[in-house]
Amino acid sequence: MRNTIEEEILLNVRPADKERREVQEMGQKLIDAVIRIAGVPAMMTGSVARGTWVRGDKDIDIFMLFPKTLSREELQEKGLAAAYAVVEMFKGSSEEKYAEHPYLNAVIEGFDVDLVPCYHIDSTAEMQCAVDRTPFHTRYLLDRIGGLRDDVLLLKQFTKGGGVYGSDHMTGGFSGYLCELLILAYGGFTELLQAASTFRYGEVIDIERFYPDKKTVRKLFSEPLIVIDPTDKTRNVAAALTPTRFSEFVELARDYCTKPDQCYFIPDAPTSISKEEFRSVLETRGTTMLALSFKTPAYVPDTVVPQLRKTMESIRNQLETEDFPVHRAEVMMGTDNCLIIFELLVADLPKITLRNGPPVWVHDNADRFVEKYLIGNPFAGPWISEDRYYTEVDRRYPHAYDLLADQQKILSGSIGKHVRISMEEGYSIRKNEEIWSPEFTFFLSAYFAKSSHAVRKLRIIDQK
Amino acid sequence: MRNTIEEEILLNVRPADKERREVQEMGQKLIDAVIRIAGVPAMMTGSVARGTWVRGDKDIDIFMLFPKTLSREELQEKGLAAAYAVVEMFKGSSEEKYAEHPYLNAVIEGFDVDLVPCYHIDSTAEMQCAVDRTPFHTRYLLDRIGGLRDDVLLLKQFTKGGGVYGSDHMTGGFSGYLCELLILAYGGFTELLQAASTFRYGEVIDIERFYPDKKTVRKLFSEPLIVIDPTDKTRNVAAALTPTRFSEFVELARDYCTKPDQCYFIPDAPTSISKEEFRSVLETRGTTMLALSFKTPAYVPDTVVPQLRKTMESIRNQLETEDFPVHRAEVMMGTDNCLIIFELLVADLPKITLRNGPPVWVHDNADRFVEKYLIGNPFAGPWISEDRYYTEVDRRYPHAYDLLADQQKILSGSIGKHVRISMEEGYSIRKNEEIWSPEFTFFLSAYFAKSSHAVRKLRIIDQK
Repeated sequence: MRNTIEEEILLNVRPADKERREVQEMGQKLIDAVIRIAGVPAMMTGSVARGTWVRGDKDIDIFMLFPKTLSREELQEKGLAAAYAVVEMFKGSSEEKYAEHPYLNAVIEGFDVDLVPCYHIDSTAEMQCAVDRTPFHTRYLLDRIGGLRDDVLLLKQFTKGGGVYGSDHMTGGFSGYLCELLILAYGGFTELLQAASTFRYGEVIDIERFYPDKKTVRKLFSEPLIVIDPTDKTRNVAAALTPTRFSEFVELARDYCTKPDQCYFIPDAPTSISKEEFRSVLETRGTTMLALSFKTPAYVPDTVVPQLRKTMESIRNQLETEDFPVHRAEVMMGTDNCLIIFELLVADLPKITLRNGPPVWVHDNADRFVEKYLIGNPFAGPWISEDRYYTEVDRRYPHAYDLLADQQKILSGSIGKHVRISMEEGYSIRKNEEIWSPEFTFFLSAYFAKSSHAVRKLRIIDQK
Repeated sequence: MRNTIEEEILLNVRPADKERREVQEMGQKLIDAVIRIAGVPAMMTGSVARGTWVRGDKDIDIFMLFPKTLSREELQEKGLAAAYAVVEMFKGSSEEKYAEHPYLNAVIEGFDVDLVPCYHIDSTAEMQCAVDRTPFHTRYLLDRIGGLRDDVLLLKQFTKGGGVYGSDHMTGGFSGYLCELLILAYGGFTELLQAASTFRYGEVIDIERFYPDKKTVRKLFSEPLIVIDPTDKTRNVAAALTPTRFSEFVELARDYCTKPDQCYFIPDAPTSISKEEFRSVLETRGTTMLALSFKTPAYVPDTVVPQLRKTMESIRNQLETEDFPVHRAEVMMGTDNCLIIFELLVADLPKITLRNGPPVWVHDNADRFVEKYLIGNPFAGPWISEDRYYTEVDRRYPHAYDLLADQQKILSGSIGKHVRISMEEGYSIRKNEEIWSPEFTFFLSAYFAKSSHAVRKLRIIDQK
């Protein structure tokens, strides 16, 4: 039973007949062109092929199915050549891109078209590359998704509205294929959301019943949501879904089932923060914000953002090892600059610190430790406590700023490759309102904001 | 082979013939008096009985051996009555004291005399009370310690010089009986110190070979030094020796063997600190010192100091739970007042803090958490991270001072009985130089001082 809210959403997200027709025609023309030019079969894949795309998201994926007798190099060569010829034929423009092997991203007659070479195989067991699996997804769903297309659209829009759609590393959310399988597994949008309301970590969905029970599956996969790919039983379709996005989805589903509302289908409009507001918020919080700022590496967010996060964790550890408690930390990838932000409870410490020495039984080390710290050290120690020597010494970094500015120390940590190259060219440290710049007004606003799914929960609380 | 340093020390610590004679005569008079008054045998115990006392430490212990047919109440009654009569007879003055049962501490003809009633038993297996064991110690040592008295005196003076003599709770060091057994076990002062240089945790000394091997002993006792009582195989004579005092003794022994010196036999003269010096030292350290000050409970240090330490640990945990990092902490028991001191790296924090919420699966708690912190909270959150809700909230104690001043909170912790009674009557919080008072000039000076055994080590380092 679809409610009026959902009916209304569908009116907005269901592709118009004209859009469907145009996409189908364009797809067929491209398939014909591949057959003519390369002499191999081709097929449309993705949501457009399955009729499950949200209005406007009409990217066309054309997979060119080459014989499996070709070597990898031959496949790439012939594949790209055919793709270029197709684009040429339609007088489109194009750009080479890389997944596991290269493909062509083109604009043809106003459509965004991917032309992807892959092997024409009979089963996923013969797969040589992840893209070889894609045609199987489309074949599998085309046979089954027919009556459930509206439900898929609702789920896609629901996950978009809740900020959990997109299987890229930045989002760590739901892919389109995952949405389709979930709808298929539960038989509809309402049924899925009701089930999801009580999901917990280690949820198992095995549509084709490849495995005897959930326990067996949980021994093979450790992700919070495990959806066995019906075309490849060794793969969890939800592997890229992060624990946080999974939990958020569960809460969104539970809250929507309690009190359905249009707002769950509408993504938050980004808010921005002015420099004056930023300064004032920091003053209210009483914390010290320090940020490393450097040029954004020339790679996609899916590559750079995980490296920024890794770098952030490395520096967070360095800060906490040096007794600077980090309240929160965040990374922000702007077009020109990246920020790694640390909000500190304490940015300045006394110059004194404790140092642990060796056990008294390790005689040479004990003597060296006493010798080193007894003379010329303005503080107390060394002394023995239980089985070890301890002493007071001068603290190496009384100011967090100086630790962050110590390039050698910071770069000795675990830092992603491209971020390292950029940081080695130089980074600056910004403090409090110096961090603000027009490039980051949305990021910084989001950092201080209430989370949107929690705000939506307020509606439910109010009705009590 | 005794060196000249040791010979010189012995000239100072060996009791003079006159002292020996006077003590022996006084002891015999007291024993005769007990026999006459109570009709039970009596004996001298302790170092005076065994001729192992350091010059001037001539406390006389007289144990009155009552028949084991008496009840505990009868023993106490008859014992105290006899003791009072003995004191009366010598026109001494006295004061009742309590170990496991009461005894009389008297001053008789200028001697400090303890008159202790106990059961006259044939073996320690019949023991009803710890004091019943004491006569066995004296009998055991009298038969064996004869040729080693000078070695015992050297060890006692060495442990006094190093600050590790005394089995009271405040010191946690070596008892006189332990010193005697160690000398007996190794056959001399030099032999013991050479062995002790390489002592490690779990050292076993079983003079009477009650146990087949050290492994068996280590299964029964967990202390760093295990000296099986030759008169009672279930008891570790070194049970009161703390790990720290044990380690310090090992270092003192090792250093003395490397380069013998008179200084190892001479206790540090206490130093004091003026208010101005105290202020200046704190300024150099850059820390904030806060202390709880209250009236000293009317009990001995052996009772009060462990309670102060327990209270200190309880409050230290409360401070660290509230994000105030404690650099060092200390307790000081003055005649009139006690101090529990916390030296903080940070005494003031921003008013913001993170709070962990419930897992999202616990639906009722999750809803309550969001409801509570979404409205009227000036900071960000609640948000989800992995499987839990989190939020920012107002910090309860932005200032460590306010936490310490919250009497209800502080007294909710784990606090020793007598200390609690005193604190409930009221305590004040002192900050930095307010902590200084003439009562604590020695304590506070020691807090900032180099440890004496480390300073002694300097002599060895210098000769390298």
